[in-house]
Amino acid sequence: MPQSPDQRGPSVRQVPEGDTCLRLVGPDCGYVAYENPKIIVGTVCYEGDRILLCRRAIEPQKGLWTLPAGFLELRETVTEGAKREAFEEARAEIDIEALLAVYSIPRVGHVQLIFRARLMSPNVTPGPESEEVALFAWDDIPWHALAFPSVHWALRHHREVLQETRAGAFAPRTNPPGEFGNY
Amino acid sequence: MPQSPDQRGPSVRQVPEGDTCLRLVGPDCGYVAYENPKIIVGTVCYEGDRILLCRRAIEPQKGLWTLPAGFLELRETVTEGAKREAFEEARAEIDIEALLAVYSIPRVGHVQLIFRARLMSPNVTPGPESEEVALFAWDDIPWHALAFPSVHWALRHHREVLQETRAGAFAPRTNPPGEFGNY
Repeated sequence: MPQSPDQRGPSVRQVPEGDTCLRLVGPDCGYVAYENPKIIVGTVCYEGDRILLCRRAIEPQKGLWTLPAGFLELRETVTEGAKREAFEEARAEIDIEALLAVYSIPRVGHVQLIFRARLMSPNVTPGPESEEVALFAWDDIPWHALAFPSVHWALRHHREVLQETRAGAFAPRTNPPGEFGNY
Repeated sequence: MPQSPDQRGPSVRQVPEGDTCLRLVGPDCGYVAYENPKIIVGTVCYEGDRILLCRRAIEPQKGLWTLPAGFLELRETVTEGAKREAFEEARAEIDIEALLAVYSIPRVGHVQLIFRARLMSPNVTPGPESEEVALFAWDDIPWHALAFPSVHWALRHHREVLQETRAGAFAPRTNPPGEFGNY
């Protein structure tokens, strides 16, 4: 029997043999789709006191500003992925300095690894997923047009560790307690 | 036509419309299996100068010693996942203190987030995936019977940061450069 498109792929929730969790199983092919959390890698890229932001050319949150970030691909390390995203979204060449933060967004099954990186050159230009890219001083950041809560978190955490790193090391941040609980 | 079991699920490599990478697509159902890296969460759990290790009851590396760790599930944060694994594998109740390390294992598509955690009680006992669990002083660690290179890395990094944390903060570790390159 031909399938309509919306019935394609794993669509039946059941506990596979030998497993303990509900998984999506294909009704025809028997394939078990293990739904794992996805890793997003991104950077707070800075040059002096200015920070790189990208205005999204794609949904979700098209037209709003974000950090260069995206899904880690197979066969790359987390820093390779973060560098690739900075280049794809802003043609930015960067030097990754340290892990800034790890944010869990369990509602959507995402874990974000955000690095602090130095821009090697202020010559940034939009890649295909950005409408516009720019370097902002702290007071000029478009706070009311940021795409995601985690962009707020990462910018604030970046600023915090600027202080601490005078001592040479800092602990990476995680989700702010109780804040943006409806992410 | 009935399928043989080894033909089930996404098995054809092609570039889906609007995508740029080869993905596995189901020949019959058209489902695209995006292969994302998986997140492993684990802990170096310590009590005084002793560290918790678990002897694996399952493959791979059955019979060798490892840290409590496993795949992050959907709908849990990274620290919730790390706590769950410590309980599943060693019935250990722990207090997570800080992110110790982020290791990328691109050959197998894994990213490990390893936390440093304090054991709330020395009463640990094997869960179903462990043959044996025990607390080891540094010199008693079964160095030649550890399951994975990353167990070596994490133990060594744990010891390193014991020094640094006297200063109150430390930067989490990543893969040791050039070491265990054949992981």
